[in-house]
Amino acid sequence: MPEAQTTGTTHRPQGSRRADGPGSRLDRWVDAYAARTRGMTASEIRALFAVANRPEVVSLAGGMPFLSALPLDVVGEALARLVSERGTVALQYGSGQGDPGLRDKIIDVMAPQQVDAHPDDVVVTTGSQQALDLVTRIFVDPGDVVLAEAPSYVGALGVFRAYQADVVHVPLDDDGLVPEALESALASLAAAGRRVKLLYTVPNHHNPAGVTLAGDRRARIVEIARRYGVLVLEDDPYGLLGFDGDPLPSLHSHDPENVVYLGSFSKTFAPGFRVGWAVAPHAVREKLVLASESAILCPSSFSQLAVATYLEDHDWKHQVGVFRELYRERAAATLDALADMLPSATWTVPRGGFYVWVTLPDGLDATAMLPRAVTQRVAYVPGTAFYADGQGRQSMRLSYCYPTSERIREGVRRLAAVVEAETELLATFGPQSMPRHPGPARSGLASPGPDLS
Amino acid sequence: MPEAQTTGTTHRPQGSRRADGPGSRLDRWVDAYAARTRGMTASEIRALFAVANRPEVVSLAGGMPFLSALPLDVVGEALARLVSERGTVALQYGSGQGDPGLRDKIIDVMAPQQVDAHPDDVVVTTGSQQALDLVTRIFVDPGDVVLAEAPSYVGALGVFRAYQADVVHVPLDDDGLVPEALESALASLAAAGRRVKLLYTVPNHHNPAGVTLAGDRRARIVEIARRYGVLVLEDDPYGLLGFDGDPLPSLHSHDPENVVYLGSFSKTFAPGFRVGWAVAPHAVREKLVLASESAILCPSSFSQLAVATYLEDHDWKHQVGVFRELYRERAAATLDALADMLPSATWTVPRGGFYVWVTLPDGLDATAMLPRAVTQRVAYVPGTAFYADGQGRQSMRLSYCYPTSERIREGVRRLAAVVEAETELLATFGPQSMPRHPGPARSGLASPGPDLS
Repeated sequence: MPEAQTTGTTHRPQGSRRADGPGSRLDRWVDAYAARTRGMTASEIRALFAVANRPEVVSLAGGMPFLSALPLDVVGEALARLVSERGTVALQYGSGQGDPGLRDKIIDVMAPQQVDAHPDDVVVTTGSQQALDLVTRIFVDPGDVVLAEAPSYVGALGVFRAYQADVVHVPLDDDGLVPEALESALASLAAAGRRVKLLYTVPNHHNPAGVTLAGDRRARIVEIARRYGVLVLEDDPYGLLGFDGDPLPSLHSHDPENVVYLGSFSKTFAPGFRVGWAVAPHAVREKLVLASESAILCPSSFSQLAVATYLEDHDWKHQVGVFRELYRERAAATLDALADMLPSATWTVPRGGFYVWVTLPDGLDATAMLPRAVTQRVAYVPGTAFYADGQGRQSMRLSYCYPTSERIREGVRRLAAVVEAETELLATFGPQSMPRHPGPARSGLASPGPDLS
Repeated sequence: MPEAQTTGTTHRPQGSRRADGPGSRLDRWVDAYAARTRGMTASEIRALFAVANRPEVVSLAGGMPFLSALPLDVVGEALARLVSERGTVALQYGSGQGDPGLRDKIIDVMAPQQVDAHPDDVVVTTGSQQALDLVTRIFVDPGDVVLAEAPSYVGALGVFRAYQADVVHVPLDDDGLVPEALESALASLAAAGRRVKLLYTVPNHHNPAGVTLAGDRRARIVEIARRYGVLVLEDDPYGLLGFDGDPLPSLHSHDPENVVYLGSFSKTFAPGFRVGWAVAPHAVREKLVLASESAILCPSSFSQLAVATYLEDHDWKHQVGVFRELYRERAAATLDALADMLPSATWTVPRGGFYVWVTLPDGLDATAMLPRAVTQRVAYVPGTAFYADGQGRQSMRLSYCYPTSERIREGVRRLAAVVEAETELLATFGPQSMPRHPGPARSGLASPGPDLS
């Protein structure tokens, strides 16, 4: 098992200066910023993604759902009805915890994952990103440890860093997080006297790894976390988007008092409303509400009632089925194209969700290769974005959610050509011919922007 | 000049326990929470406000705009058009900084206050509350000092406390923040070696004091802040809601490099979309965007495009005028009723906005009186909510924005009866007859919920 690794919160002046842009040397506030801003740096791949959004580039980078599959006429009518019938409520301030009617419906939405909760246990948030922020805010002091899978969701790593946590990665395999590795990491950290606050995990259709935590590992993982007094933060935006069979029971179902469950309408309906939620034990939930009121006063009444009206008016389960079939077809197209055109690489086989994790042949560096890939009109997210410690250079995340199957095939064709050229260079001139990546300090946890959600 | 006072961030176990509710003794996470949660406590007046929302109570407590004055049919049509014409954009993820089209329009909205900015300088936030959170997040380390008016907006005090700042109040008078008091507070703090990071101020139609910062004080205040290296955080939700004449030039107009200006559509259009913004110097703006991406990924595309469409389709300036006339009439009704029925008190005379600040006769305690007032079917916010240090017992905030003039008159009548009964009690039995307020630790910065925005 790979050794658990920590990442520090060392100040990196050159990174900060770069993030400030051209005017930075004249920034009169440079000595006034809080210590936590040292963890907030702009990713160097950010500029590349601005280019990657051009129509001629096949972007396998972003995690944007394919919204053209939504019945926009139904949504438009629901919103017009909402304004005419409940306008003064929808446009007004609401409760800090979220609309009670929407919280009722959220209970139904979580039934397939067997999240057994009461509407009072639910806190509605501005996307599940805000729930990540709030949970971290109420639990993490600077220097506390957060455990996360290796690799892990870039947006969560950014939050942990913003609160000055030390992220320790725990390996996963094709069946998700490895319980023995978790136990071993916790034992080492306990022996070192470290305070471990959270285990962050995406059990279903993992972002970015594309794997799902096996059913027989779930109870064990919750049991290990409980034994070490560590709260499990179960992030489940893709749970309903499995290609076959029912979702597995959530980690939450194994011990509701030891798990905070996060859900989202961003992948099953629409991210533009920014509606997510947390289900938390009573005392934690009360703190989350207070923290959310401090952060945003209350979530958008309009967004919440829009989602509630959509869930009520429309056969949303059918719509989730439409998305599922669409993504199943695109996942298959991705896997077929990889098998046809990039046989020198290895990859995970998703059974749902948006992502395939591809590992390149030895000696190749996905981060260093990205500029050339974008020049060849294909984009992906390099693996280093998903680690707190500079790992992941040989890997990349491919998203199949947004482009059509035909475009995906074209994208993989372009990618294969880039990999082939890199491989030839490597074979001819050896590893010293490969461009040096500037190092983990300039990628990793840095914020690549919302495109990569 | 009253002496500047600091409030510490001492742990108050009884307050925290109370905030946890009945299950708190069994909270298995009680030792795991971050230190900052000690600043997040539920206000004891929260339960009272649940009662105050009953229809038989005249609530002069909440800061909810009177949305029945909005043209709901226009809003409904604009939203239906938005979904049919730009649905896949409005429902998708967007930029962390906010929609460029909306940022363009925000420049126009700020023109009357002479906030001269480029759309690139604007960061769209989830209400201006999120902007308060983000600015505090990037500037305030635990123990840093934030200066705020005495009294000050309860939601801002909650944010400063959540980031473990020490709030130092600076007096205001009928012309707003007193420059000499600011200078003196800064000199004392400098002498004491304290790090002062922000001056938080609501210059126009102050919440809760109802006063406006005089034009001739504005340049002086910015100059003093700059001289001490303190960033001015100018919170201006009510700037367009002045009853007579044009708005005064913003503090921002006096030195854009030393001021972060916050605006909001919550009072001039609708709070239910949660759209606010910050205008900040270049380097600060870049940090705000990174902090916002960490907190929420991106603001709601739908909310932003809804506001932009409304601004485009509708004569929004006329609508602001409608609100202004409505609030002018209600402010006049409040002042008339106070003069008729509560002549023993004193109060500020608002020239815009939502609030009158009332000071009771000597010996009366507005916090202690609140339960009886609610029993007599009238609600207000006691002055203590607006101080970090337990001041304000003799005062209260009355909001005239939501009830009709007739209801306001009835509310003041009920309030006058309560004050009269209290005054008789005081005259008959002396100060020892008055119920003791439990002390500043149980009010002040605690979160009373979003109703009090």
